[in-house]
Amino acid sequence: MQGLGLRGRTLLASGFHAPERGDIDALHEVLIAIGEDGVIRTVTRPGEEDYERALATARETGVLSTLPDGMLLLPGFVDLHVHAPQYPQLGRALDVPLEVWLHKYTFPLEARYADAAFARRVYRRLVADLLATGTTTALYFATVHVEATRILADICLEEGQRALVGKVAMDDPQSCPDYYRDASPEAAIAGTWEVIDHIRSHPANRDGRVRPVVTPRFIPSCTNATLQGLGELARDCGCHVQTHCSESDWAHGYVLARHGMTDAASLDRFGLLGAGSVLAHSNFLTADDMDLLAARQAAVAHCPVSNAYFAGAVFPLRAALEKGVRVGLGTDISGGPISSILDAMRAAVMVSRMLESGVDPALPPRQRSAMVDARIDFREAFHLATAGGGDALNLPVGRFAPGCHFDALAIDPAAEDGTIRLWDVEANDEMLLETILYTASKPNIAGVWVGGAHVA
Amino acid sequence: MQGLGLRGRTLLASGFHAPERGDIDALHEVLIAIGEDGVIRTVTRPGEEDYERALATARETGVLSTLPDGMLLLPGFVDLHVHAPQYPQLGRALDVPLEVWLHKYTFPLEARYADAAFARRVYRRLVADLLATGTTTALYFATVHVEATRILADICLEEGQRALVGKVAMDDPQSCPDYYRDASPEAAIAGTWEVIDHIRSHPANRDGRVRPVVTPRFIPSCTNATLQGLGELARDCGCHVQTHCSESDWAHGYVLARHGMTDAASLDRFGLLGAGSVLAHSNFLTADDMDLLAARQAAVAHCPVSNAYFAGAVFPLRAALEKGVRVGLGTDISGGPISSILDAMRAAVMVSRMLESGVDPALPPRQRSAMVDARIDFREAFHLATAGGGDALNLPVGRFAPGCHFDALAIDPAAEDGTIRLWDVEANDEMLLETILYTASKPNIAGVWVGGAHVA
Ligand SMILES: [Zn+2]
Ligand SMILES: [Zn+2]
Repeated sequence: MQGLGLRGRTLLASGFHAPERGDIDALHEVLIAIGEDGVIRTVTRPGEEDYERALATARETGVLSTLPDGMLLLPGFVDLHVHAPQYPQLGRALDVPLEVWLHKYTFPLEARYADAAFARRVYRRLVADLLATGTTTALYFATVHVEATRILADICLEEGQRALVGKVAMDDPQSCPDYYRDASPEAAIAGTWEVIDHIRSHPANRDGRVRPVVTPRFIPSCTNATLQGLGELARDCGCHVQTHCSESDWAHGYVLARHGMTDAASLDRFGLLGAGSVLAHSNFLTADDMDLLAARQAAVAHCPVSNAYFAGAVFPLRAALEKGVRVGLGTDISGGPISSILDAMRAAVMVSRMLESGVDPALPPRQRSAMVDARIDFREAFHLATAGGGDALNLPVGRFAPGCHFDALAIDPAAEDGTIRLWDVEANDEMLLETILYTASKPNIAGVWVGGAHVA
Repeated sequence: MQGLGLRGRTLLASGFHAPERGDIDALHEVLIAIGEDGVIRTVTRPGEEDYERALATARETGVLSTLPDGMLLLPGFVDLHVHAPQYPQLGRALDVPLEVWLHKYTFPLEARYADAAFARRVYRRLVADLLATGTTTALYFATVHVEATRILADICLEEGQRALVGKVAMDDPQSCPDYYRDASPEAAIAGTWEVIDHIRSHPANRDGRVRPVVTPRFIPSCTNATLQGLGELARDCGCHVQTHCSESDWAHGYVLARHGMTDAASLDRFGLLGAGSVLAHSNFLTADDMDLLAARQAAVAHCPVSNAYFAGAVFPLRAALEKGVRVGLGTDISGGPISSILDAMRAAVMVSRMLESGVDPALPPRQRSAMVDARIDFREAFHLATAGGGDALNLPVGRFAPGCHFDALAIDPAAEDGTIRLWDVEANDEMLLETILYTASKPNIAGVWVGGAHVA
């Protein structure tokens, strides 16, 4: 599928998407008509009235593209939580406590992005690697540096990824090291505006594929003046917002002690919760917090692997979903060792089962179980990784439906270097998808498109 | 490294092994002299008295092989729990209860190995795939079928894998389906002997690289007569033994109810616990069971991913290790969706942390925590995957040391299609290994050797 742009073309393909949580929609030889703007115009299934005519017309006018036999089309993956500057420490220093991780490794690494050449080198590699593993939309924390953050946005534009890029705001001298923080609330806010203006006025970004995000690191690293200013800024610019929320006992307790209310409630009073606000982790949300997020249409970036390393609890995913909270998945590069949403999906299922069953074999099952009906399965994980992520960002991605961007990947189950092995065993569509989601690896990803453009 | 046999040669290489649990031994440009039998004769480090002379001699006599610059040598991985016939359902049917999984999917699939052609096709692919992901030693459950089990052993011999292969014994009509079980205790035992004789007398197996294993599926699927007979057989033949032990609440409770003692105690009285006995899962071992296993030098195959799907608890790994129980890792194809020991290592770390922290965010940390000091880190996971697995099997593999088989893999961190990305960030040897273990994938495995023979 090398070099195969799909803008203005009609794709004949089979595959899967999960427009509604819990349901898989198998697509058999559907026709997907894609506009010159990369947006899906129509999706037509065999047996539908227009199908034969649309197929014939596409053939005649030379706009028909056909996914090779055996390949399967999936919506591109949405990664709701990536610390772009931490890519060089992926899979590293995971056995140290959070304070050591931050102050000995992470902050010194992030501080290096004052060097634009280093930023360019890392970000180029990161964006290419994420695209190659099917992440068509990424929500990025960059660093405090305006220039390096602009560079990340520029690279996303060049490489063709759909991305939301935020300059990190962190100015509290009590928690941030002197060598790595915003000099003042004014500096944090001005720098944020600078990046917003850069991205919005970028000549290569007329269609808004890359967007700015207001990005207070988390309440503990920000002064109230900065939180206040960023809330006002978010209202003024209408940007997305991202931050960390109630990740650990410590973080949750810190905000309670400092602000006399929960993390979510405090973010809300600063004007930082709305449709398009994404709160990473959020493991310790109260029931009221969940109601608040649902009311505000704010979303959670569920990071199942990272939570095992730094959160000390499992996000109560199903409880949040049932309260109507929007949830998508995050790798949290590099709070955990994964960079692929395939791994995040697998871990989301696994930890949900562990939350349901509990972990301690010394307890009888009923006492061991932490949360009844907490489990999700691959169907829900797939939805979260695609349509759920799109909904969290309030963006029309993650579904093969009219009005959605054609962000997609093609899986080649037969790739010899890959890890999918299909056999002539009893199977249905859903089991085929299950096998693919559980066993695919990078060599099985044969093509990736963002807005109809071929990007990997 | 294609085609590069190392028997009778001296390898100059850098890499890592973990001969003692918790310690990483970094090897810098060591010389590993390998005999014509594939057994390591000497390992010499720079600065040691003989190093320069050994290097010069190897050069002069033309037996020096050099691992390409940047590649890193690791001991081959040991997978202590593989259901070979279940490979066609890897990553499938993981959202159903165990009974459905067994009776609707697994037993019908295993029954198909009455067809030797099907067995040959699946087993050829499985053994090649496991070798390609660095599994140099595998402990296999086959099926009840003598012929298909012989075929699996033959394929391991042909493909060059070190393997232990067991015909599954399961004869209890109360728990096993009519279409898939041994006809009687006599049939189970005779069939087991048949496979033992086949493997031991195989002309291509003079060095015993492939070994037979006495394999009662688990107590619930065997009559007492079969357990008794297999215990006697194990004593007579001196074979390895494998079975499942206390995997789930149900299995643990079943044996208590039927035999009035724990699974481990019952296996012991049947003579099925000894050095080289490997008990899969063993999540619900009592403290006494652990003492018993330690006394018998029996081992546990820890299957961290599969346990999340079918066990409902986390194996108390550190507790077992501290009681002196031998432990290695298993993928448990296909009780979980993984086939690579890299994934098993990562999951072993992750679930150990979840056992320590607990999972339920609604509880305060002290009540949430299931087990103090339960966590392991990548150092211990690496040991379990290599030397620990060798010790569990009572086989000299998993270390670069005189007397050990040269079973190894070469990691190419620079493989473009791979997933390791190394950067000029502050690092030491251990962090390099950590990065590799957490982020490597199949394309990063550039070469695999078993007993000095190049096998992938
Ligand atoms: Zn984060
Ligand atoms: Zn098993």
